[in-house]
Amino acid sequence: MSKFQPVRGMRDFLAEEAKTMRHIEQTAREIARLYGYEEIITPVVESYELLAAKAGEEMRHRMYAFEDLGGRKVALRAEFTPSVARLVATTLKRASKPLKLFCTGSLYRYDEPQYGRFREFWQANYELIGSTRPEADAEILSLSYDLKEKLGLRNCYFKIGHVGILRGILTQENIIEEQQNQIMQLLDKKQWNDALAVLQELGASQKCTKTMQNILETQGKDVSKVLKRAKEIVKDYEPAVAAIDNLHEIVDLAQEGEAKIELLAEMGFARGLEYYTGMIFEPYVPDLETALGGGGRYDKLVELFGGEPTPAVGVAHGMDRLSLAMEKQKISIETFKKKRVVVIPIGEKLAAKALELSSMLRKAGISVEVEVMGHTVSKALQNASKRGLTNAVIVGAEELKKDKVVLRDMEKREQKTVEIKHLVNEILRD
Amino acid sequence: MSKFQPVRGMRDFLAEEAKTMRHIEQTAREIARLYGYEEIITPVVESYELLAAKAGEEMRHRMYAFEDLGGRKVALRAEFTPSVARLVATTLKRASKPLKLFCTGSLYRYDEPQYGRFREFWQANYELIGSTRPEADAEILSLSYDLKEKLGLRNCYFKIGHVGILRGILTQENIIEEQQNQIMQLLDKKQWNDALAVLQELGASQKCTKTMQNILETQGKDVSKVLKRAKEIVKDYEPAVAAIDNLHEIVDLAQEGEAKIELLAEMGFARGLEYYTGMIFEPYVPDLETALGGGGRYDKLVELFGGEPTPAVGVAHGMDRLSLAMEKQKISIETFKKKRVVVIPIGEKLAAKALELSSMLRKAGISVEVEVMGHTVSKALQNASKRGLTNAVIVGAEELKKDKVVLRDMEKREQKTVEIKHLVNEILRD
Repeated sequence: MSKFQPVRGMRDFLAEEAKTMRHIEQTAREIARLYGYEEIITPVVESYELLAAKAGEEMRHRMYAFEDLGGRKVALRAEFTPSVARLVATTLKRASKPLKLFCTGSLYRYDEPQYGRFREFWQANYELIGSTRPEADAEILSLSYDLKEKLGLRNCYFKIGHVGILRGILTQENIIEEQQNQIMQLLDKKQWNDALAVLQELGASQKCTKTMQNILETQGKDVSKVLKRAKEIVKDYEPAVAAIDNLHEIVDLAQEGEAKIELLAEMGFARGLEYYTGMIFEPYVPDLETALGGGGRYDKLVELFGGEPTPAVGVAHGMDRLSLAMEKQKISIETFKKKRVVVIPIGEKLAAKALELSSMLRKAGISVEVEVMGHTVSKALQNASKRGLTNAVIVGAEELKKDKVVLRDMEKREQKTVEIKHLVNEILRD
Repeated sequence: MSKFQPVRGMRDFLAEEAKTMRHIEQTAREIARLYGYEEIITPVVESYELLAAKAGEEMRHRMYAFEDLGGRKVALRAEFTPSVARLVATTLKRASKPLKLFCTGSLYRYDEPQYGRFREFWQANYELIGSTRPEADAEILSLSYDLKEKLGLRNCYFKIGHVGILRGILTQENIIEEQQNQIMQLLDKKQWNDALAVLQELGASQKCTKTMQNILETQGKDVSKVLKRAKEIVKDYEPAVAAIDNLHEIVDLAQEGEAKIELLAEMGFARGLEYYTGMIFEPYVPDLETALGGGGRYDKLVELFGGEPTPAVGVAHGMDRLSLAMEKQKISIETFKKKRVVVIPIGEKLAAKALELSSMLRKAGISVEVEVMGHTVSKALQNASKRGLTNAVIVGAEELKKDKVVLRDMEKREQKTVEIKHLVNEILRD
């Protein structure tokens, strides 16, 4: 490992990449504000015990865990949920419900680096805590939609399902939770046959296997139709029917609030994490194979972390994936278009005057650089042009006597003498 | 260690604290834009070799170092400079100069936690790379000043000095760099007598000791006067005289650009880090004893990290300290004042309508929550009032027939029926 390379799986974001990431972060924060979600900032380093508690075998083995200098077993956070659950179980225990929390930052998993997957990755996370109602689920769908919309992503659709459908069938067949988890994990990996084989091994009824098989194949974009068919298939499994009704209510609410959310209902949809208890979803764009994030309802999570039983629904948006999707769809960020000015003094004696002028322009909100290399005017202009600056202000002794400077349009290669008091307006004019 | 507490030295930022930190970050980013500094994002996890290279004994022992799952010796960054130097020596090697870089994020040091000091702390960092000129130093002072100004901090002053004064004397006395570093470190801790004792042990001349003693006592707010006196004191030490002239030039430029920067010139000022080569400074407010950050010129740093010889000047602002200073000076953030609205449907049947209205309000930029707890109107209003929301929109079947809703002012406890098409204007009116 060279000390001059980032550590494997870690990245530097430069120029446009950094701008895009901060733009996504800022947009996610604006969505939080618009929906009344309060931002919290939790530490990158948490106790290993907390992070490992509900992480699942796989994630536990991929954590950046170590002992700190005080001998504490700690780890770098691999998801936000444990930290949020810790707060809800302690400091925020008595906060009035619903609690709406937003957090964003970097997370760490020792995965094999590949396209769109890094060992340091970024998420924007929304959690709505304290409500069991479908309005809450619909709100999470709606804000997720608004985030994509505000980022300018096109043709976004949400894969949607409900873990209560599959679990409802399995529960009624008296299959215990641990075995259910095993089946759900196989289904998450689309290993349907393996899952059905496990089901048979466990002695599930013929009817159960048949129902599972049918339900796994039930999917489509016309959600009402899909749900109606699914309800017919699981009609003998009451908890599964209730799950479908719940999903129907959520979808209806979300569609009325945001008529344009495109959905793909998948009745056999299962997400890897064990803690989901209700509706689950993943946003996609056609340009990328991987999901841009994931969310759903997890009513037992806070309890699992030692808090009081607390219903909750939330979503984590993968900022790296969002950035990739924006790149694929060639979405540019507006900030690039703004005016960027360089102020060039002719000779050292005018350096102070150049600083004074640049200070004046900045007060008007203009991005200003001052020539600090001691270059000649022509060299400085060449540099500015190369770096995409839009204007140059050339400060010369002759013009200054008349309270004027030379303003150059770098693109048009034109320049004119303007009064200093009109300089701001002249720059912002076109 | 309880898994329900943050790890010792780590913090959660909630509510106003989180808002303040993000406000500081955003303000620092705006200053970067105004001065044409490009943001870069570097990883939290870097190679230990890189981070340890120039860290100094003390910092090296306080790093969060560990082996990753691939057996790489890594550590959490304890400052931004090594990562910036790595980039300047590699990816940005051929970028045209000056290179102006901004970065912000969390850093990690295993210090003893105390007032204003944490093991996870936040910095906003500016680096101007490639210029040896005093305009560059002045720009770093000026942007540091603008940052405090934009945050609303009052009575800010900069302690300022130049390592070339002390080193100039020592060099002319043929004291080698390692011994100089030892003396500088003692001076940084204000252990003047110990420093002078070391000087005598090393066999420095009587004149040298006397000059050092006098220069250490030379300080004051009238910078020109202080520098004049200092120049008189070190007149036989040419490199020290040159350092004073350089500092004078920088201060003149900075004062002309930003006439209001208050300075405290200290001729015996030394900063702990060994890599400074020229002007050094630390911003303060009278309300806090500790510095709010620190910066200066370090022309040899990039070279030390294996890059080409590259002059550089920069500053790191401590965001935790800035936040403390804002708290001490009772500076509030404007975002708190904005409108925050809750939409309450009367009865489940109107939930979808409530979502539709909230979506409309958000499109107008208003922060909106929807009642998702199934509470009665009076309970929901009580909740909203407790949480400081400014308005409630009550959606009832009767009013809806006439395309109207009830708009309530939570502070005045008044409500009126308004047409939906006028709702946005009515909310934003006062």
